[in-house]
Amino acid sequence: MGESGFSKLAARTGEPAVTWLMGTALARPELISLAAGFTDSATLPVNETLALMDELLGAGGPGRRALQYGTTAGDPELRRLTAAHVAGMDGGEAGPDGPYDPERLCITSGSQQLLYMLSECLCDPGDIVLVEDPTYFVYLGITQSHGLRCRGIRLETDGIDLVALDRVLGELRARGELDRVKLLYLVTYHQNPTGLSTAGEKKAEVLRILRHYERAAGHPIYLLEDAAYRELRFRGADIPSALTVAGARERVIYSGTYSKPFATGVRVGFGILPRRLRGVVMRVKSNHDFGTSNLLQQLVRSALASGVYGRHLGVLRARYAAKAGVMCRALRAHFPPEVEWREPTGGLYVWARLPRRIRTGVGSKLFKSALRHDVLYVPGDLCYAEDPTRRRPDHEMRISFGGEPASKLPEGVARLGKTLKEMMSA
Amino acid sequence: MGESGFSKLAARTGEPAVTWLMGTALARPELISLAAGFTDSATLPVNETLALMDELLGAGGPGRRALQYGTTAGDPELRRLTAAHVAGMDGGEAGPDGPYDPERLCITSGSQQLLYMLSECLCDPGDIVLVEDPTYFVYLGITQSHGLRCRGIRLETDGIDLVALDRVLGELRARGELDRVKLLYLVTYHQNPTGLSTAGEKKAEVLRILRHYERAAGHPIYLLEDAAYRELRFRGADIPSALTVAGARERVIYSGTYSKPFATGVRVGFGILPRRLRGVVMRVKSNHDFGTSNLLQQLVRSALASGVYGRHLGVLRARYAAKAGVMCRALRAHFPPEVEWREPTGGLYVWARLPRRIRTGVGSKLFKSALRHDVLYVPGDLCYAEDPTRRRPDHEMRISFGGEPASKLPEGVARLGKTLKEMMSA
Repeated sequence: MGESGFSKLAARTGEPAVTWLMGTALARPELISLAAGFTDSATLPVNETLALMDELLGAGGPGRRALQYGTTAGDPELRRLTAAHVAGMDGGEAGPDGPYDPERLCITSGSQQLLYMLSECLCDPGDIVLVEDPTYFVYLGITQSHGLRCRGIRLETDGIDLVALDRVLGELRARGELDRVKLLYLVTYHQNPTGLSTAGEKKAEVLRILRHYERAAGHPIYLLEDAAYRELRFRGADIPSALTVAGARERVIYSGTYSKPFATGVRVGFGILPRRLRGVVMRVKSNHDFGTSNLLQQLVRSALASGVYGRHLGVLRARYAAKAGVMCRALRAHFPPEVEWREPTGGLYVWARLPRRIRTGVGSKLFKSALRHDVLYVPGDLCYAEDPTRRRPDHEMRISFGGEPASKLPEGVARLGKTLKEMMSA
Repeated sequence: MGESGFSKLAARTGEPAVTWLMGTALARPELISLAAGFTDSATLPVNETLALMDELLGAGGPGRRALQYGTTAGDPELRRLTAAHVAGMDGGEAGPDGPYDPERLCITSGSQQLLYMLSECLCDPGDIVLVEDPTYFVYLGITQSHGLRCRGIRLETDGIDLVALDRVLGELRARGELDRVKLLYLVTYHQNPTGLSTAGEKKAEVLRILRHYERAAGHPIYLLEDAAYRELRFRGADIPSALTVAGARERVIYSGTYSKPFATGVRVGFGILPRRLRGVVMRVKSNHDFGTSNLLQQLVRSALASGVYGRHLGVLRARYAAKAGVMCRALRAHFPPEVEWREPTGGLYVWARLPRRIRTGVGSKLFKSALRHDVLYVPGDLCYAEDPTRRRPDHEMRISFGGEPASKLPEGVARLGKTLKEMMSA
């Protein structure tokens, strides 16, 4: 048997970088991982979850209903609560026919599953998606697996560069490739990996620009707004989502999750979608799994309805604010002044930009030296799409204050700072 | 905007029949549904699950670990217990390098997700899969969505007709299409929809035949053994899985689930796969969701380790045996003698074959009349693949004793029997 018989999709699907990084971490017990996007284990709501399970499965609770199949779109009451939750953050209302209509919402197995199904439903191999430069690397894994082409849009401190967006779309139009462009993917809150958020006005401008090119594209170009870290904000005001942009809701896909803000072991995410697209996604989901675990959905529903979720968010925000503070103090103390980084206002990450001559990739001296010093980071180049029009920058790194306990962060940063100084003085 | 911009996959993905059937059921509150493949709500292990959650999340339990991310392949101890469980049923041992090596196993979000990912990893649009005639209709939804061609293999009372399998493969070889054949999908235990099981010797013969055609195919032709209903056996002896066939384990994919035998709201399934294929499936799963909910995995792990799962199976089997008995007595009392059916030995279904002139499809007089009599069944034609070489039989029906309480089964069968008699005497 010479041939494997595997599909083209299988051939395109590479080993995810995160698997390799996690394997590396496990092999070195003394390692401090500033790489993992894990949430802080100490914040996981163990007692709260047990109390909610007690209500769900104890006398007087829904009991058996929680252990039976649900529907593909998800529990109606969880959808209603979720719609109201997002509407509340946006200063809107979750009535029918509005942007927060529960009938526009679906529950998924983490927001990751939504990102996956959207690629399936909107994109054929060879299609083009626009992404931030840099962006969430697991999303890049999905695009690669589906044979999609990516174009990276330069990121400014308040979201993508609108001039760059317009230029890229103009170039694609000139090359007759606009019909292949399906969506723009933005991680709009405390972005993974940079920690930056997209300004509200920029969302409106982005939608205006996408709309401008739609006629030439011959189909909608969606804005996929990934709001995974929205609720992990610990400084500044919340920003309205793109759903609030007047007249644009049929072009906005809002992706959210309860995994990060509640518990990563409880894989419940959601999407708010244009109605017709939602129908297509639900048909595909019925083939994936005909519905996310009902027990997990009932758990999240109870957490929302009881106020447990809101209270837990408060605890989480205070904790991550403190950990971000610890990390920033350590960065000031240990990182060379040539390294650029900014204090996060939410999320789990700090993005550090080194002088261009210092490479950070997994094959670099710096990465290997950091490993020898028992500290791990995410190399920045993993967060850049393959884009034929530019070289992937490889002098940046993502460091996380999420997973490791606060007590280990200073030592982790100190080790990394020592490595950096050695490398930069060499 | 004339064009939708949706993908080819989206265009191919139809509304699943089950959605329509469920909608119909919800619209008629007096309806008795003999259609749903739901398990019996009364058997759902509410108290058991609460006790297990108490151990997981209470003092001394793994607590936070259960609420954190796991790995893509699944919890190692759950994989070990699952491997031992399947090995035990097969009379084998779950050692490393054997067919039940936990490193050949992966945990999925229900076995449905495994079926989906296998189609993604093995099949390109236009590829061919062989299925039983009839087969599990949700699997047919997956094949349709991925643009696969199906060939149905005639089913005998002890599994597929080996002569038909050989003939179909021979025809495909003669037409130069054997290189497009990727797998044979068999639901080997108490099959959905017929209730039939595949004899052990037939599994060996099937593998021999597939092996025979591999050289001409140029790649492996896998046997995908769906054992979803294996543990819901209430009469007769268990049958060893295809994993026991000597020398064949690199061609067998074993798909199992804890959803049906434990709780359908807990979506945990698993697969045992040839090593290289498992690697590919895991890479794809890391894009789907990077791992099934760890909380659900820990729950199932505890259920297995504590013996709760085994005891629950005993309860379940006794209950379904009783319900099957109730249904069969009602069938004998109310169905016309021209209708052929057989007593099930496990699973949730009875398959009834009507005289050929009586159509059962959703557009048929019988189906509409049954609905008017407030009883629902699954039309048999939904369970047959689109196969250009034969017409889809449309004079059969699947009726389930799973979802409705035993007290309602006689009335449901009586209504259906009345409808049948009216139709057959017309």
